[in-house]
Amino acid sequence: MFKINENYLKLPGSYLFSTIGKKIAAYTQEHPEKKIIRLGIGDVTQPLAPAIIDSLHHAVDEMANAETFHGYAPDLGYEFLRNAIAENDYRARGCDISSDEVFISDGAKCDSGNIQEIFSIDNKIAVCDPVYPVYVDTNVMAGRTGVYDANRGVWSDVIYMPCTAENQFVPEIPKEVPDIIYLCFPNNPTGSTLTKEQLQEWVDYANKVGAVIIYDAAYEAYISEENVPHTIYECDGARTCAIELRSFSKNAGFTGVRLGATIIPKEIKCGDVTLHSLWARRHGTKYNGAPYIVQRAGEAVYSEEGKVQLKKQVDYYMKNARVIYEGLKEAGYCVSGGINAPYIWLKTPKEMSSWQFFDYLLEHANVVGTPGSGFGPSGEGYFRLTAFGSYENTVKAIERIKKL
Amino acid sequence: MFKINENYLKLPGSYLFSTIGKKIAAYTQEHPEKKIIRLGIGDVTQPLAPAIIDSLHHAVDEMANAETFHGYAPDLGYEFLRNAIAENDYRARGCDISSDEVFISDGAKCDSGNIQEIFSIDNKIAVCDPVYPVYVDTNVMAGRTGVYDANRGVWSDVIYMPCTAENQFVPEIPKEVPDIIYLCFPNNPTGSTLTKEQLQEWVDYANKVGAVIIYDAAYEAYISEENVPHTIYECDGARTCAIELRSFSKNAGFTGVRLGATIIPKEIKCGDVTLHSLWARRHGTKYNGAPYIVQRAGEAVYSEEGKVQLKKQVDYYMKNARVIYEGLKEAGYCVSGGINAPYIWLKTPKEMSSWQFFDYLLEHANVVGTPGSGFGPSGEGYFRLTAFGSYENTVKAIERIKKL
Repeated sequence: MFKINENYLKLPGSYLFSTIGKKIAAYTQEHPEKKIIRLGIGDVTQPLAPAIIDSLHHAVDEMANAETFHGYAPDLGYEFLRNAIAENDYRARGCDISSDEVFISDGAKCDSGNIQEIFSIDNKIAVCDPVYPVYVDTNVMAGRTGVYDANRGVWSDVIYMPCTAENQFVPEIPKEVPDIIYLCFPNNPTGSTLTKEQLQEWVDYANKVGAVIIYDAAYEAYISEENVPHTIYECDGARTCAIELRSFSKNAGFTGVRLGATIIPKEIKCGDVTLHSLWARRHGTKYNGAPYIVQRAGEAVYSEEGKVQLKKQVDYYMKNARVIYEGLKEAGYCVSGGINAPYIWLKTPKEMSSWQFFDYLLEHANVVGTPGSGFGPSGEGYFRLTAFGSYENTVKAIERIKKL
Repeated sequence: MFKINENYLKLPGSYLFSTIGKKIAAYTQEHPEKKIIRLGIGDVTQPLAPAIIDSLHHAVDEMANAETFHGYAPDLGYEFLRNAIAENDYRARGCDISSDEVFISDGAKCDSGNIQEIFSIDNKIAVCDPVYPVYVDTNVMAGRTGVYDANRGVWSDVIYMPCTAENQFVPEIPKEVPDIIYLCFPNNPTGSTLTKEQLQEWVDYANKVGAVIIYDAAYEAYISEENVPHTIYECDGARTCAIELRSFSKNAGFTGVRLGATIIPKEIKCGDVTLHSLWARRHGTKYNGAPYIVQRAGEAVYSEEGKVQLKKQVDYYMKNARVIYEGLKEAGYCVSGGINAPYIWLKTPKEMSSWQFFDYLLEHANVVGTPGSGFGPSGEGYFRLTAFGSYENTVKAIERIKKL
């Protein structure tokens, strides 16, 4: 008789955004006349930039002719895209990353979920709290997290690094030594950043204790301030301890196009074995490459036109971020984020819980946000709004919130 | 100090097709003037059909406007595609599969590699021998296969079901009871099929012993004979024991487009837990949907025009299959497959090993095939040729082989 992976059953409730979806559906059914504005899930709303559309059409035409048709892609990605990423995101910043250290995938969510697989089950992970749920949930499914304490909302074998107003949402080196450290900066959900010096401390620490940092750089394009690192490889020694995840979802609006990349320098080793070789093996065995047309779209992100158009797109969202940030401040909320990130993180008013505030906002302002507690116990009492709506809707949503 | 997943290190050598690629590269470097014909890897060569190209262009245009832009897809796939699959591949054949039992993915390779994850590590798998390497390798990476015997090329905890000329390449019910049974028919690599009665025996057996069948139907479009089931759900009782994997790679040439589907009926249960719920959870947590434009391309596969165009494409490849099958027979080879499958399976001549014949064919005919032993120990002494080349090249390759 077959047996299931019992670790799946340990997962508490359903995935955060599914729960939100159900609540919205229920409210909409009861109040079909209400116009809900969604500033919750981190999905973009602006269409793909013209340079990307052109490149998609061109690639589709190539697929229509035997001479230019593309079948199976190289497992690890086409050279043209691996080169563009290594050149533009790394070497142009003075970071020593070669093209064959870039692995193309269908998105950072998959990569951030799958990467744990190349590690032993008995590694201990450390995560910021609050945190993007995928890091923890995928480790739960692998059986790496111990027992869940439903009252406290924590796993016995996970090291939590609280990020709250008290420490400016910057994680501190944990007392217990982790094997794998997940960091995401600019941060989802708090919108906070690390300075280069702060990130360097983490790299030094990881090298000292022999830990690996999984660095999620999905929001890099939103950095507007100096001294905020765009990649972990700006730090000395990152090549021996850090994996970096990159997304095309937020800088280029690829949430529905699906493209990502993971960088694994060849120097990260356990004994003689490189993590690079393990991830290459995983790609070769379990993955069949990102679509050719999508990889060509990714290439267009790095074209001169593409860069100009996407800068405008990011500026558009960052204008929204300012509307939210300043509007909420005026309304008396305690807010952070929004300067180097498309996320605004606010303290819920009147000691409401995160879900109470979710319901309150849905009902009284018809605005959807994301409850902070959905990202971990230290997110309780906080709430996330995103800058990915249209400008008009964002302005309207903030007006409604101001009137509460 | 972090530790790696040691199971990865148990994998012998590199992935079959990587090895072949290296051998071709080495030969080409030494003999740059030789024109190699590749009938090895199962990659298609015909361009995408016009109906699919049209649908891709249309979907790309939708992505260019905010009103019709599509961000994150539903985790489990767009309704339009789930409906099209349930309707055309199942209900039209009288099989009771509902749209919400269809999970859209970026391809059958990923699904066939990932599906083992929802099962416990201590399940025992049974595979045909020879077999598509992904089934076994992904179980090795999960730690489910025991110890490798390099001499015999087998794992201690895998049940092998030899498929050789002696049993017409049809697996027999194994003596030891498995928990998970991988079946692929029409078969890769042997090109053999099961009759409906033969498949029914497997379904009855699985239900009797409480096993799950993972049925890979990637080559269904190539079935030309009566009484060969197009889906396992043609068999009574399959809804309580069978998962089916579907590919768009071979029926629609999507090897570089990436689209697949997995069917999990809600009746397959372990205690109260449905496999359907576990796979839905996996999709929601580790996957972010197939690209919108690709799902629209998948929809076009089921349009009236699409069906007509793709039937022609399959006919084209099957004409190649006949050229190979008949040509090799004339040349005195012992061949099978090729009637309901794009694969022709042949006995190597003069007691050559599979890899000896690979080298011989590469060197003397400049034709690339796939060594049978790469698919498992019972594949030793066999060799696979595929019908996915161009007609002209296929004819040329067979002429060269005839002259050997």
